[in-house]
Amino acid sequence: MASIERINAYTPAEFSAAFGKVYEHSAWIAERAFAQRPFASDTALLLALWGVVQSASPQEQLALLNAHPELAGKEAQTGTLTDASTHEQSVAGLGTLDASQRAQLSELNRQYLARFGFPFIICARLNSRDAIFGILRARLTNSRDQELQNALTQVGQIARLRLLDILAEP
Amino acid sequence: MASIERINAYTPAEFSAAFGKVYEHSAWIAERAFAQRPFASDTALLLALWGVVQSASPQEQLALLNAHPELAGKEAQTGTLTDASTHEQSVAGLGTLDASQRAQLSELNRQYLARFGFPFIICARLNSRDAIFGILRARLTNSRDQELQNALTQVGQIARLRLLDILAEP
Repeated sequence: MASIERINAYTPAEFSAAFGKVYEHSAWIAERAFAQRPFASDTALLLALWGVVQSASPQEQLALLNAHPELAGKEAQTGTLTDASTHEQSVAGLGTLDASQRAQLSELNRQYLARFGFPFIICARLNSRDAIFGILRARLTNSRDQELQNALTQVGQIARLRLLDILAEP
Repeated sequence: MASIERINAYTPAEFSAAFGKVYEHSAWIAERAFAQRPFASDTALLLALWGVVQSASPQEQLALLNAHPELAGKEAQTGTLTDASTHEQSVAGLGTLDASQRAQLSELNRQYLARFGFPFIICARLNSRDAIFGILRARLTNSRDQELQNALTQVGQIARLRLLDILAEP
């Protein structure tokens, strides 16, 4: 595990290589957080990254949401997911949907994207497969403003678990 | 709106009076965050409070969850909710449940508490009434570890909106 002292000594390129993938296809978040070194602790690093998201513009936040793949969608089926997303979707049991479940999820994802303008995002590691289906149906009844906040919060949960994994690497 | 400069000059008692209610019945969170002054911005204050939760012990985190009332439960029915909770549950439409919906929610809350050992927590302002029922049913299928994380995340959403309200007060 890289100590916070060692992390604080990273070059910009090392920092981006280590933490650029905490937020899906959005290395700009780590790159912007780099300016806030030194970090007092792992938690301070987590909150610095999250603070970049919180203080990003609405356009940047929307771009972050849209950088996420559709759950069990075409990236998963064509093997083009990021390694982190592949792992997360597999842990939730989304890799072994039968044809009917896959069609159902695809239709719900389509409705969600059409209604809100960004993909349905949920921290797959923190929810069972059954929960994911139920929560997706339920969140379809929310307003767009509510879902913008819920989606960003889920992105924060995903990022927290990814960062813990990175910090635990040997 | 109190500026961050003015907030940074608060005494411990003023700070606790202003921000002690951001986390339900858990003023210790604001009191611990006080040590981190000065805050560079509203976002820095938000993240300092959230950082106290993230770095609290598992026992303290569980106590925080258990400081939350049951949704549309006995506190709501006897008028002993905090002002913030009354507002939040009302915005979500939980103040106007009919007898059947109330019985259903009460039974789901009972199952949730029995299964996980802490009450079902959701940011009511960020979810429609229908979404709340669906998400509660769905989250019942998760593991206790998953729900500990989901509950803390919802607490963070609630706190964020409460803090924004406090900062916007005239």
